[in-house]
Amino acid sequence: MTHTVLTFLDRAFPDGRIEDATKPQLFATDLGATRGDGVFETLLVLDGHVRKLPAHLARMSKSAALLELEVPDHEAWERAIVTALDEYQRVVGPLTEVVVKLVATRGVEGAHEATCWVAASAPAPAAKRQREEGIDVLLLDRGYDSDLAERAPWLLLGAKTLSYAVNMAALRYAHAHGADDVIFTSADGKVLEGPTSTVLIAHAEKDDAGRLTLKRLVTPQLDSGILPGTSQGALFAAAKDAGWELGYGPLEPEDLFDADAVWLISSVRLLTPVNHVDGTAIGTDPELARALTAELAGLFDKIA
Amino acid sequence: MTHTVLTFLDRAFPDGRIEDATKPQLFATDLGATRGDGVFETLLVLDGHVRKLPAHLARMSKSAALLELEVPDHEAWERAIVTALDEYQRVVGPLTEVVVKLVATRGVEGAHEATCWVAASAPAPAAKRQREEGIDVLLLDRGYDSDLAERAPWLLLGAKTLSYAVNMAALRYAHAHGADDVIFTSADGKVLEGPTSTVLIAHAEKDDAGRLTLKRLVTPQLDSGILPGTSQGALFAAAKDAGWELGYGPLEPEDLFDADAVWLISSVRLLTPVNHVDGTAIGTDPELARALTAELAGLFDKIA
Repeated sequence: MTHTVLTFLDRAFPDGRIEDATKPQLFATDLGATRGDGVFETLLVLDGHVRKLPAHLARMSKSAALLELEVPDHEAWERAIVTALDEYQRVVGPLTEVVVKLVATRGVEGAHEATCWVAASAPAPAAKRQREEGIDVLLLDRGYDSDLAERAPWLLLGAKTLSYAVNMAALRYAHAHGADDVIFTSADGKVLEGPTSTVLIAHAEKDDAGRLTLKRLVTPQLDSGILPGTSQGALFAAAKDAGWELGYGPLEPEDLFDADAVWLISSVRLLTPVNHVDGTAIGTDPELARALTAELAGLFDKIA
Repeated sequence: MTHTVLTFLDRAFPDGRIEDATKPQLFATDLGATRGDGVFETLLVLDGHVRKLPAHLARMSKSAALLELEVPDHEAWERAIVTALDEYQRVVGPLTEVVVKLVATRGVEGAHEATCWVAASAPAPAAKRQREEGIDVLLLDRGYDSDLAERAPWLLLGAKTLSYAVNMAALRYAHAHGADDVIFTSADGKVLEGPTSTVLIAHAEKDDAGRLTLKRLVTPQLDSGILPGTSQGALFAAAKDAGWELGYGPLEPEDLFDADAVWLISSVRLLTPVNHVDGTAIGTDPELARALTAELAGLFDKIA
């Protein structure tokens, strides 16, 4: 187990209350534990800087609103994050690469107050390896139509809730079938998202001299019941500035197989190339795919 | 908050380890709390007797298997339940009516051992009132086709997982729209289940003397991705012995409106009559509906 630093949000401690993660901290009647009722965000700290903090806090507010869950304001979270990272530096080591998780549950049954904490820990080693070597994914049916989110708000599509049992089961299913990860598809055949990531595909054209004359980056349409990716959002902005064309689906599995490159992108694992989808190799020009990955990774690295 | 008695399953304590529920008992890195990754059962104890214990333990084993989660054997759970109830009797009061929750999470991140506990507490007062007065329900789309469960095991349909955020959101949606509860329908228009209950409907015919000549009890088909209800199973067995005809869907919303009576049934709230569905009164003969409810409630009371 990696060392985890915990800071609870607590009105009596405006900067957050540091607690020992090697001791129990949650009540067995917390609705986070008994109902998966709550929201979370996972952020990456690189060289002391918390990446995309406003985007994560904004998304957590949106998730909490979809769950009608009252959570502390952004400033309280920011203070608790600072406290957690100071403590991490003091007891674990430098803030070279730290994963910060924000969690808000509906709280202890009957108490009507969210339980909120910040957990800081080292990233899993697998993330770096997957980023470098790429991954194989399976397409798995998520069971929902892509137009369901708006007409069925109780399904919480687009909220990042603690009820991740299906996402975890899909990953186990992939691992049991020789793959590393999953891309969910909708009941109506659209590409949605990974269990913990956003899907990106790219098309490019080269001129006779091998220079890229067109670079087009596409992600599934945001209103298809997927989680809006903070990494996708930031990377799209950077790619646009760098001259890429942008597109927002709808994507179908065909589009993955026709792409010059496919990635899963997330805050911690960053830009991870997809080598195979359902056993079929992605892209026909490995050199081109590597060039696209390198360019996007370069843009991604610069994101604040 | 009601008083809760906690007993953790622990290899070092074959009868279970009693813990103080007013103190934190779970780690903030428990995958139950951070991923809703685990399973649970809710049982009712009446006059010292744990109702339908084998059915609940069997369903928990099935849920755990769907999640590939290793949980202690039935004997360990039974011992922990006995310990919890003894303690409940000692510190809270007689075992007239006690709710017992069994929870198994995937455990602390990296530890690869389930966190398992038994929680005993008093039932919420609302259950009794709803049972006596009946409830109004909304039909809400669950988003899945009714034939999805078998071809998409990663969706964990039919497993009673801790990822109940959608079930809780559906109940909140119903309350905000003037209803007490929800009946989920499938994307292909079939009646599924309540967020925490099973749907039952009945048809009856009377002869000229007012005697019931036909009593037919129907529940949605069990392979439609719903949770197999332990109460439905036990009541069907009792009703069969009492001369009722039985049926297993498929049911559509029309069938609710055509029924002589509709109930939501669950281990704690027992047999709860549905008065209105989407604002439409159920049944045309209130006296008949009351007679059916009384007869089924009588059968249900006798279930071990």
